[in-house]
Amino acid sequence: MIPRAVPLRRHDSPTIFEREPMTEQKQLKLGAFMRPVSLHTGAWRYPGAYPDANFNFQHIKSFAQELEKAKFDAFFMADHLAVLNMPIEALKRSQTVTSFEPFTLLSALAAVTDRIGLVATASTTFDLPYHIARRFASLDHISGGRAGWNIVTTSNPDAALNFGLEEHMEHGERYHRAREFYDVVTGLWDSFADDAFIRDPESGIFFDPERMHVLGHKGEELSVRGPLNIARPPQGWPVIVQAGQSDAGRQLAAETAEAVFAAPRNLADGKSIFADIKGRMKAIGRDPDHLKILPAAFIVVGDTIEEAKAKRAKLDSLVHYDSAIASLSIALGHDASKFDPDAPLPETPETNASKSGRERVIALAETEKLTVRQLAQRLGGYAGLAFVGTPQSIADEMEQWLHEEGSDGFNVVFPFLPQGLLDVTTRVVPELQRRGIFRRDYEGTTLREHLGLPRPENRFFKATAAAAQ
Amino acid sequence: MIPRAVPLRRHDSPTIFEREPMTEQKQLKLGAFMRPVSLHTGAWRYPGAYPDANFNFQHIKSFAQELEKAKFDAFFMADHLAVLNMPIEALKRSQTVTSFEPFTLLSALAAVTDRIGLVATASTTFDLPYHIARRFASLDHISGGRAGWNIVTTSNPDAALNFGLEEHMEHGERYHRAREFYDVVTGLWDSFADDAFIRDPESGIFFDPERMHVLGHKGEELSVRGPLNIARPPQGWPVIVQAGQSDAGRQLAAETAEAVFAAPRNLADGKSIFADIKGRMKAIGRDPDHLKILPAAFIVVGDTIEEAKAKRAKLDSLVHYDSAIASLSIALGHDASKFDPDAPLPETPETNASKSGRERVIALAETEKLTVRQLAQRLGGYAGLAFVGTPQSIADEMEQWLHEEGSDGFNVVFPFLPQGLLDVTTRVVPELQRRGIFRRDYEGTTLREHLGLPRPENRFFKATAAAAQ
Repeated sequence: MIPRAVPLRRHDSPTIFEREPMTEQKQLKLGAFMRPVSLHTGAWRYPGAYPDANFNFQHIKSFAQELEKAKFDAFFMADHLAVLNMPIEALKRSQTVTSFEPFTLLSALAAVTDRIGLVATASTTFDLPYHIARRFASLDHISGGRAGWNIVTTSNPDAALNFGLEEHMEHGERYHRAREFYDVVTGLWDSFADDAFIRDPESGIFFDPERMHVLGHKGEELSVRGPLNIARPPQGWPVIVQAGQSDAGRQLAAETAEAVFAAPRNLADGKSIFADIKGRMKAIGRDPDHLKILPAAFIVVGDTIEEAKAKRAKLDSLVHYDSAIASLSIALGHDASKFDPDAPLPETPETNASKSGRERVIALAETEKLTVRQLAQRLGGYAGLAFVGTPQSIADEMEQWLHEEGSDGFNVVFPFLPQGLLDVTTRVVPELQRRGIFRRDYEGTTLREHLGLPRPENRFFKATAAAAQ
Repeated sequence: MIPRAVPLRRHDSPTIFEREPMTEQKQLKLGAFMRPVSLHTGAWRYPGAYPDANFNFQHIKSFAQELEKAKFDAFFMADHLAVLNMPIEALKRSQTVTSFEPFTLLSALAAVTDRIGLVATASTTFDLPYHIARRFASLDHISGGRAGWNIVTTSNPDAALNFGLEEHMEHGERYHRAREFYDVVTGLWDSFADDAFIRDPESGIFFDPERMHVLGHKGEELSVRGPLNIARPPQGWPVIVQAGQSDAGRQLAAETAEAVFAAPRNLADGKSIFADIKGRMKAIGRDPDHLKILPAAFIVVGDTIEEAKAKRAKLDSLVHYDSAIASLSIALGHDASKFDPDAPLPETPETNASKSGRERVIALAETEKLTVRQLAQRLGGYAGLAFVGTPQSIADEMEQWLHEEGSDGFNVVFPFLPQGLLDVTTRVVPELQRRGIFRRDYEGTTLREHLGLPRPENRFFKATAAAAQ
């Protein structure tokens, strides 16, 4: 469990002249959800977008630096351990077949940024805890305390085939291993006390072996001796992030996570997840403020709501019909390829497809008056929570979520880049700052400080006054 | 096997005014062997050294940038997968207990350098080929073609315990797995043809699936489906580096390596290794020029040879006597802790210790007239090949090795940092340049181009004219 402590410097205000009057307002946390560019499958085709941004380091560097200028909490990198299995007509149109590996990309970004957090996705199913502990510790040292670990158990069966497993590990077993993996990794991070390194050239003593702990873990899934061959991370532990939506995933999050990457469809859904996870935390004695719930939110900005909607429609129209219709067929549980693309959605019989998912699709078509083509392209593009409007209307929605406990902030999904990102950093962020619900400058230097999270105590060593900063 | 091709731009000369007359001379290749600082156990205590350099990114960044200014071929990072098992009195004086992880460090360095090669050590015994292939490909893309993979099989039994193995894998089995691992990794790098990515916003085609290959490897040790989820590396494959000294290691190098990190004791030894490995290459039809032999060389520079020797003696004196005497005892196969530290080495009976190693130690003590203490501290500090002298005498030795086929260059071990590094970059390198045996500027942009190595063809796809650059 995460020990509780007073967040470092969280309420150290800059001078009065730099602040709006409403200093005590709840503050939004903002991450950028990158894959490493947009999740929208049509994004690379949008006018003005860089078609190669997905694996052009110079572009991604410019995005990270722009996000840092806008004081984003973190650059959050999604990941896959395989070329995703999809129909060839969809696959050949997908920019996700090639992308940087998260540790290498985020380490490179660490060297060219100063403040923004760097969250890497890493799998507990297809990697080894000594490597994972070491790489995150190293990234945390290189970045001066800006690393975060998005723990995933990897449910993609194609990934299993890349790691010598014919059959994918079953859900319960994956979560069981994930829990033990987390214990080992955090235990390895605590291999050295914060004050273990003396480095006294005079006496020749480099470190105090009394302040080194040999983990000696022998569990059901893992056996790891330790110690880790790197000093304790500047943050104590990199920030623990999770996205699990299942019951097991929410429980693991309540026990171990410090940020949750949720995927509610709407505010009511968001409030329910928020209440559930924070409730589980209270039940086990954790301070609910020590975990930030940050849903993914797709943001499209326009001068008017109509213009923003038109941009989204334009973007959706770039999704190839074959992949679009496949998404719609899955959602309906019914082959939609025979429908008239330019007519409204016809009546379809109920099937085994998720009832709520099917109803949501039908409601979406009705509310937005979408043709079959438009509906399919929405689903094949990006169909999650979206704020589409003016900087003011988007800020209104964000503020409502914050105040009604739908979330602690958002992981922003950009529709296309660079312009869709610039629209957020130069138009939405200033509006949030004007309202006093988003920082004008970083209060601290570490991702923990940005998120208002306590620094975990070393489970094996009490901090001395000097090491506690 | 590495396909042969004409090295890219290797002989494209700059203008005549920038060149010495001896353009056609053989050229030395220079790597910096970093751990990530000095291998000498007393280095961090040397006057003026940074005691925290081992895991201070700002220092290491400044070292890499200085090496690049001096036109070094590569920054070569050694690695261990454990805190090394040594007596506590030696351990607590060792800076190697904490160090950066290679992929994270080299990726960060990639973002703040432009030309220098970045060679990471990665183990075939304790890692998985999909991860390794992906990380090196990613580092190669981020760095614009500067990555190299130092393939190690990891002989340290302490590492095994950190990866769930009670018993260390036997030598032959490790090499067997290494060979298959290499085939899988290079096969994954060839997942996409160089021209697979079309990225045409108009048609919406991102890549040509006909130019993607699914590896489908099922071998004795490994089962990996593929394809890799990243485009082919800019270098085709990152440069393959090996250090194996054993018969199996030399054979693997002759078959697969493009650079060998050798450890000869002296020129005669160097010539023998050089002739052996290049002979093995000829025997299997590889061009011997497509592998560069780069022994580790410890370099100490002075205004006079005496001054350089005095610096080395000073550095050796910083090695703690307990760890020093342990090294001497191992070399002699005899407990040396009872010897008078300040007397010459007494006669000792022959034992089971390596005969040649024992004789070398005795000869060293006689040649340099070392006391027991000095001899022990030499062995406990750095006892490999060393060039200790003036810029001229060091250049003389390097030139002799190059011309007598003792090596193609060196991996320089710096005695202490930053000064020991600056002595090489600002005094030895200019002398080598004056003699026309080291570049004044990089001829190309990739590590392959620096080393004069051909770009491997994709084994699954013939290059088209456009993709061949």
